[in-house]
Amino acid sequence: MERAEIIGVGTELIFGETLDTNTAEIARSLKPYALKVERTLRVVDEPRPLVREVRAAWERARLVVLSGGLGPTPDDVTREAVAEALGEPLELDEAVLSEIEALFLARGRSMPEANRKQALKIPSATWLKNPRGTAPGWWVRKEGKDLILLPGPPPEWRPMWQEVLPRLDLPRRPYAERVLKTWGIGESDIVERLGELFKREEEVEVGTYPKLHGVEVVVRGRKDLVADLSERIKKRLLKEVWGEGELTLAEAVKRRLELEGATLATMESLTGGLLGAEITRVPGASRFYLGGVVSYSVGAKARFGVPEALLAKTVSAETAKAMAEAARVLFGSTYALSTTGVAGPDPLEGEPVGTVFVALAGPKGTEVRRYRFPGDREVVRLRSVYAALALLLT
Amino acid sequence: MERAEIIGVGTELIFGETLDTNTAEIARSLKPYALKVERTLRVVDEPRPLVREVRAAWERARLVVLSGGLGPTPDDVTREAVAEALGEPLELDEAVLSEIEALFLARGRSMPEANRKQALKIPSATWLKNPRGTAPGWWVRKEGKDLILLPGPPPEWRPMWQEVLPRLDLPRRPYAERVLKTWGIGESDIVERLGELFKREEEVEVGTYPKLHGVEVVVRGRKDLVADLSERIKKRLLKEVWGEGELTLAEAVKRRLELEGATLATMESLTGGLLGAEITRVPGASRFYLGGVVSYSVGAKARFGVPEALLAKTVSAETAKAMAEAARVLFGSTYALSTTGVAGPDPLEGEPVGTVFVALAGPKGTEVRRYRFPGDREVVRLRSVYAALALLLT
Ligand SMILES: O=C(O)c1ccc[n+]([C@@H]2O[C@H](COP(=O)([O-])O)[C@@H](O)[C@H]2O)c1
Ligand SMILES: O=C(O)c1ccc[n+]([C@@H]2O[C@H](COP(=O)([O-])O)[C@@H](O)[C@H]2O)c1
Repeated sequence: MERAEIIGVGTELIFGETLDTNTAEIARSLKPYALKVERTLRVVDEPRPLVREVRAAWERARLVVLSGGLGPTPDDVTREAVAEALGEPLELDEAVLSEIEALFLARGRSMPEANRKQALKIPSATWLKNPRGTAPGWWVRKEGKDLILLPGPPPEWRPMWQEVLPRLDLPRRPYAERVLKTWGIGESDIVERLGELFKREEEVEVGTYPKLHGVEVVVRGRKDLVADLSERIKKRLLKEVWGEGELTLAEAVKRRLELEGATLATMESLTGGLLGAEITRVPGASRFYLGGVVSYSVGAKARFGVPEALLAKTVSAETAKAMAEAARVLFGSTYALSTTGVAGPDPLEGEPVGTVFVALAGPKGTEVRRYRFPGDREVVRLRSVYAALALLLT
Repeated sequence: MERAEIIGVGTELIFGETLDTNTAEIARSLKPYALKVERTLRVVDEPRPLVREVRAAWERARLVVLSGGLGPTPDDVTREAVAEALGEPLELDEAVLSEIEALFLARGRSMPEANRKQALKIPSATWLKNPRGTAPGWWVRKEGKDLILLPGPPPEWRPMWQEVLPRLDLPRRPYAERVLKTWGIGESDIVERLGELFKREEEVEVGTYPKLHGVEVVVRGRKDLVADLSERIKKRLLKEVWGEGELTLAEAVKRRLELEGATLATMESLTGGLLGAEITRVPGASRFYLGGVVSYSVGAKARFGVPEALLAKTVSAETAKAMAEAARVLFGSTYALSTTGVAGPDPLEGEPVGTVFVALAGPKGTEVRRYRFPGDREVVRLRSVYAALALLLT
């Protein structure tokens, strides 16, 4: 299979002042095509290394995509580097220059001299219009290959890329990918449970990715094989799979509660509001989520209905139960979730960091689960949130 | 200057199922050293491309750091690839094998056969102990160069890297970087306010990075110049700078309240618990944070003390004020913060998405600020949280 090379340009990407999500997004957009992405690169805004990397990428790939370094500052040298790597001169396009000048005039300013270079291109490139900024891109077609030069900001390059990608005539493949999301089962237990279904073949393969919201089982490969295999895997993990694809636990909870016409409230301790925040991240949350209490102090727990007798030891199944039941009464909701436990960094009430109780109170009674999560304070808190939501799904 | 090459190994990094933040974090940790990081790479979990990339990196660099691909699955081929790239055989270390077996036994399980390969290493490598997982790393010293092999999860590789980095005897440089954190002033206003202090010189340079918690002003370069320049910049932005370096708004708030011996409570609407979550992310939050209410529904607002008359229009300065004051009474705290507004995706009560009111109630009265944030639901919610915290600092 031929290769695609994806390069994010910018010193800030190397050191993470700006998070590089462009190269991964571009790589994902190439999945329906029969091109291998064996690596992605981030390169500093410096002519020498850039020329070297572009040259090496161009030599071995059918398609090279670069994003970043098309701005007006002296830092922005991607155009110059690509011209040098491909051995072509930069030429000023008067028509494009006028367009850029017009953009500035429209904002009541005259174009700074620095922006002039955004109208430079090499002979084998055609322009890619930038609907959201001053820097147009390039589409270079040469020697049966393509090189695409895009600006860095996603709102700018995304529409440009969507426009040009289908016009590249890249070879297609019947590729598909399904993501099954689980809670309550570890990676190695999944591998064991799947047995012969854990395929690692050229045409279809299964991967497991542990996330804080549970292990994701990803099936990828030939479309028909993926469809068949993922259905069989789903049956084998019936109790643990709570969703698919981009769905989040909070979205799955919303679906279930809306179907039921039910409402939800929360009372959280160690998660400090993170559970409510996760629930309300989903648009439309106000249709079922009534609200919550963050009972971070003992005083708050008492005020909102946790019995005095429990307050001496709040990290307990009994407290979690009492909290969920109190929230259900307080808000008059169908269901209520609670969290209590030790996020760390120190043990609490004799319980080690990671000890967590979550509870679900509902019309049929209250269910409590106990966990012992590994990880630091933030990880424990996030897992507690997911554990609470999972109570409504698994 | 000699080079460092940093490689993140994993197909999931290429396509972004897992975001590669490791390479940037490792790159940053090398800033005090006289090594150039001209590029970073993400490479698929496949022997052929991995061997090629490791070989190329090893040829041109003084230091190569790899992370990822040390797990037990057939996917994990980094060890094998490095061995082949450096032309050395893999040998089983019985002592390390016993240690891994012991780790499993401690969890009451026997070691799966698949984990055996985690005890393999090449002759020129020494082991790097992994305090948090089964996969130990390698430190290869050869031909006056170093190659470090780390696992992928940050909680695992971070302590290993901190331990080995100072022992590599890398050449140092008098580099420094100061990060000044602001709230309430935009990038271009900062540039204007700084004037001649906005230096872009070889030896010292200033950069501005807009973040959700406000614009960061970064001064980097020669140590003495950085110290001097950042002090002058701080004076020029006296009202807006609320912290430095890694400090978060919530940590700055904690410092202030602890100094004052004050306590805090919250009542949140559009942020749904995110404000409480941010406050309690900081260890020791329970020393000043009493708790909060998530008054996501009109019913909840009424129940927790917002006057009936205000409930017809909850996105308002009056509601924000009433919420903060009600929380202060409810929890008996020194201060209370509130948020109300429109996170989107649709307008609400005639107000456009991004309209937000935050309030601070305290012994001297109540202050309300109104904002109109650009961005999507999650961005608006985060900025609302930061705006609320900033009330206690700027
Ligand atoms: O600030 C409030 O009082 C408030 C309480 C709950 C929801 N909202 C906003 O109302 C809109 C609809 O909420 P939702 O969760 O159903 O998408 C959305 O813009 C929320 O930010 C606002
Ligand atoms: O679950 C609870 O009742 C509860 C309420 C507040 C705090 N905690 C835990 O108590 C510990 C100290 O809290 P903090 O915020 O002061 O670091 C920490 O492990 C928290 O997770 C736990």
